[in-house]
Amino acid sequence: MKGWQLLDEKGELGFRDFVVSDQGGTTVSIQASALNHRDVWIQKGLYPGVKPGIILGSDGAGILNGKDVIINPGFSWGDNERCQSGVFQILGVPGHGTFADSCNVSKEYIYPKPDHLTVFQAAALPLAGVTAYRSLFSRGQTTSGDTVLINGLGGGVALLATQMALAIGCNVIGTTGSEWKEEKALQLGVSKIYNYRDVDWAKKCLKEVGGADVIIDSAGGKGFNNLLKVARPGGRIVTYGGTTGKITEISPQIIFWKQLSVLGSTMGSNQDFNDMLDFISNYKIEPIIDEIIPLSEIIRGFRKMEEGTQFGKLVFDHSA
Amino acid sequence: MKGWQLLDEKGELGFRDFVVSDQGGTTVSIQASALNHRDVWIQKGLYPGVKPGIILGSDGAGILNGKDVIINPGFSWGDNERCQSGVFQILGVPGHGTFADSCNVSKEYIYPKPDHLTVFQAAALPLAGVTAYRSLFSRGQTTSGDTVLINGLGGGVALLATQMALAIGCNVIGTTGSEWKEEKALQLGVSKIYNYRDVDWAKKCLKEVGGADVIIDSAGGKGFNNLLKVARPGGRIVTYGGTTGKITEISPQIIFWKQLSVLGSTMGSNQDFNDMLDFISNYKIEPIIDEIIPLSEIIRGFRKMEEGTQFGKLVFDHSA
Repeated sequence: MKGWQLLDEKGELGFRDFVVSDQGGTTVSIQASALNHRDVWIQKGLYPGVKPGIILGSDGAGILNGKDVIINPGFSWGDNERCQSGVFQILGVPGHGTFADSCNVSKEYIYPKPDHLTVFQAAALPLAGVTAYRSLFSRGQTTSGDTVLINGLGGGVALLATQMALAIGCNVIGTTGSEWKEEKALQLGVSKIYNYRDVDWAKKCLKEVGGADVIIDSAGGKGFNNLLKVARPGGRIVTYGGTTGKITEISPQIIFWKQLSVLGSTMGSNQDFNDMLDFISNYKIEPIIDEIIPLSEIIRGFRKMEEGTQFGKLVFDHSA
Repeated sequence: MKGWQLLDEKGELGFRDFVVSDQGGTTVSIQASALNHRDVWIQKGLYPGVKPGIILGSDGAGILNGKDVIINPGFSWGDNERCQSGVFQILGVPGHGTFADSCNVSKEYIYPKPDHLTVFQAAALPLAGVTAYRSLFSRGQTTSGDTVLINGLGGGVALLATQMALAIGCNVIGTTGSEWKEEKALQLGVSKIYNYRDVDWAKKCLKEVGGADVIIDSAGGKGFNNLLKVARPGGRIVTYGGTTGKITEISPQIIFWKQLSVLGSTMGSNQDFNDMLDFISNYKIEPIIDEIIPLSEIIRGFRKMEEGTQFGKLVFDHSA
């Protein structure tokens, strides 16, 4: 079998032979995969314990015994819905991932592909879908009628969270740094968009929409204070990333007087994954794809994600 | 009627006549009251909109129609259990408080005194009790078997939270800055105490006890990072105060990877107050009193709380 693997510690990638059956599970023939920030960081050497020879990739859709399947990329979560166990792993580092002909995973993580999705949409779903679902519902307790702010529209999790919140009747607002993303988000049904580079965006958001009940964030950093400002009393701010670094100078007073909840979330339990698939099928949600890239051009995908110029998922077509 | 009121904007206090019936409620004859940090801050001019002539005091126990009663100091919370309404008020600023012969409050906030408490213990209960109960249970979802860390043992809320957590079978650990408080806390049933001035206390706590499921904090500040460190995966850190200032340099990664919840909490709803009274009665919890001070020596109480040398509540005896 062949797959895209790390060739050295400097992060060079190459399409090479590998042995597929090293994970003791069932081998899925992969038709499509999708890129996550995680893959870029692993490739750049920002993850600990990554060894040359590893096949990257956490998202995959393919065929098993003639049936269309997708893979739950979160292994060994454990029985505690509150948090993953100490042996939790994500598909693609430390075990071989999905950027290959085939992928070997334990049967319990293989699910039927939702009927309404193409194989490319299905490949775009798993990691972003379970992350968005857990953030929005298991952690953020979002319900119909809530105003939901998505901080930083454009990425896979942010857009799936947007679609999920819109599906149950939330008023979804958002921030972005690019005007062209703004237009795309409005088309999706986002009612109001602020540019996070505008120093007054939080003030405007409070004045125009009265803030938000639920905020979904993967930036952290100094800008986190604006999220505390626009959170309504009783609001939930779910954080699943920290792309702009450490959160600084937070006032405990704003947190306790407004009874805010700052909720960390990463990936999701088996229950979250199941619930996410049901939700996606019930509401016929189709993950937004920025571009379907031939697997042979995978490196272009990595560069595009680094530049942050995508709107939706970068999906790899394994037949091309 | 007479009560201790602010005489000027500089915070001088004096025992003066006032008109009791200005709040349109029922007049309780006050036998005992208790001091809260809030009173000290109001007296020092740190609260907005405080006018001379106001009677301070949020905690009170007394007599109404021959029956022993206590007062719920949180008015107009509203119907949302998540947060207080915009018209929420705390007894004693902006309305007259309890450091007086009598106090006029709406009937709905007057409750029978729990039978097992003296009038002094009852006066020590309301504000600290409802704050501790909401923090620990409504917000922190503490259950039997959890390890609970109380950051800064000594204050009213911290000690009531300690007693409540011990009552349901939690392992309670804590921090303090004074050795003599350490001994008192151990006598109470706290299993392990760290000195928060020890730069390695978090490391020791992780090694010796494996951290905590629930953390109750009113300090905030730089030290908040240690709380994130000692929080176990899935842990809840409840913050109800910010005595050491802004929280700095927080890593989003530690919050999302450990699936932590940072939960702001202040006062409590009517439901919280009711539940707290039931809890206190069921478990026969007696609030810890540092000293019963004659009301005439109220200013000594204010100074003692400013110095932070108390262990438990400072209660005022209105018959002395």
